[in-house]
Amino acid sequence: MDERDATDGGDVVQAFVRGLAVIRCFDAQNRSLTLSDVARRADVTRAAAGRFLRTLEALGYVRSDGRMFTLTPRVLELGFSYLSASTLPDVIQPHLEALSRATDESASAAVLDGADIVYIARVPLRRIMSVGITVGTRFPAAATSMGRVLLAHAEPRVVDAVLAAPLPARTPQTITDPAALRAELERVRERGWALVDGELEPGLTSLAVPVRGRDGAVAAAVNVSMSSGRHSRETVVERFVPTMIREAAAMQADLRLL
Amino acid sequence: MDERDATDGGDVVQAFVRGLAVIRCFDAQNRSLTLSDVARRADVTRAAAGRFLRTLEALGYVRSDGRMFTLTPRVLELGFSYLSASTLPDVIQPHLEALSRATDESASAAVLDGADIVYIARVPLRRIMSVGITVGTRFPAAATSMGRVLLAHAEPRVVDAVLAAPLPARTPQTITDPAALRAELERVRERGWALVDGELEPGLTSLAVPVRGRDGAVAAAVNVSMSSGRHSRETVVERFVPTMIREAAAMQADLRLL
Repeated sequence: MDERDATDGGDVVQAFVRGLAVIRCFDAQNRSLTLSDVARRADVTRAAAGRFLRTLEALGYVRSDGRMFTLTPRVLELGFSYLSASTLPDVIQPHLEALSRATDESASAAVLDGADIVYIARVPLRRIMSVGITVGTRFPAAATSMGRVLLAHAEPRVVDAVLAAPLPARTPQTITDPAALRAELERVRERGWALVDGELEPGLTSLAVPVRGRDGAVAAAVNVSMSSGRHSRETVVERFVPTMIREAAAMQADLRLL
Repeated sequence: MDERDATDGGDVVQAFVRGLAVIRCFDAQNRSLTLSDVARRADVTRAAAGRFLRTLEALGYVRSDGRMFTLTPRVLELGFSYLSASTLPDVIQPHLEALSRATDESASAAVLDGADIVYIARVPLRRIMSVGITVGTRFPAAATSMGRVLLAHAEPRVVDAVLAAPLPARTPQTITDPAALRAELERVRERGWALVDGELEPGLTSLAVPVRGRDGAVAAAVNVSMSSGRHSRETVVERFVPTMIREAAAMQADLRLL
């Protein structure tokens, strides 16, 4: 039987859509799930959840003790189809390492995906923050230093879409006024870096710069993040900005060699 | 219509199986694919490939210029369902960073998945090797230091299955005799570490130790990898082994706190 039979709403394969939703059921708060948990979280019937879970088990993506289901590390091959198909993380990672050593802080790289940033590489230094950031983590672009760098260089229609939607107030400091954010993006574009202090999470400061790809367009943003108050704003700007611009230039040189 | 209609061979949802195969079509050698490429690589009809690609595009996992299809970073959320659902990478990563600093070499962590190891965390130092290793990368367990540590502590049926299949000769140095590998696994278990030199790739040396989880079972292996000849075997064993055992103990202490 052809998967066409599972198609509705035109050309979208619903069985595939629902199966992917089953994978996404699992996260840090839901490491092990029962059949009922999966049915509820993926919004499918128990019978459908059972078939998807048995399919994932047959593919080695899920293991089960009969009652509880957990993902296996084989699932990584799905997300990593992107990482291995993209040259960016590969080229950027060694430079993030250098950046982290130079600043003695965590360093990350992200790309824009709609109104969110997605981490594509990261060198964590120590677990200073309550947030567990890993490759694949998403945050609202508007409230992050990397997001602001990416938005500052994005096409107008992308920026307009982000500014048209409500801007999430992650903390009392988060800029939520669209006009104020648009002015900040203009400043970020002019000076070449973004500094965000306590707008994503209280006590977290982050500084980001753009990395341009071979075509000259901004391909990613890199940042260093630190506890607020660990360095004065002057130190961050005067010491870290030149270091970051230097490493970004090194990344760009590597990207041009590809 | 229910996705049951797309089921055959019992309880496996074929549309889901084929859709996941479409995601896996993309890799470092195949960053952009045409509809025909995807149909051929996923072994589905062109019509089916079109429906899966349009489904992935609707979900934001694929973008297309009309002819070529590429994955978007949103695909990371699938693989990272595992990473965020697992405490291991989170706990291990800062210690890998420390290990990399202490040895001035790349450090990684992996878990066993059948006869393969899968990288779950990595701190790359520089791109010394032709292989692009990232989280999610798979290698035959038998030919790697982390794989040997994991096999040395695996259940007998797991080891028997690996030894019953042909052992891939990645280089002329790779141990391919099952009895010789079984003896090596015994040595690895006794001395507490594995050293592999040029068996996975010529010129690549790797040293691995086990990391035990809360239940006392080996949950992961960590390694440092380096150019062969950069250090003498004595340096590797006398200087790196104690450092690695110390960091592994620190990881285990953190895992027990969870």
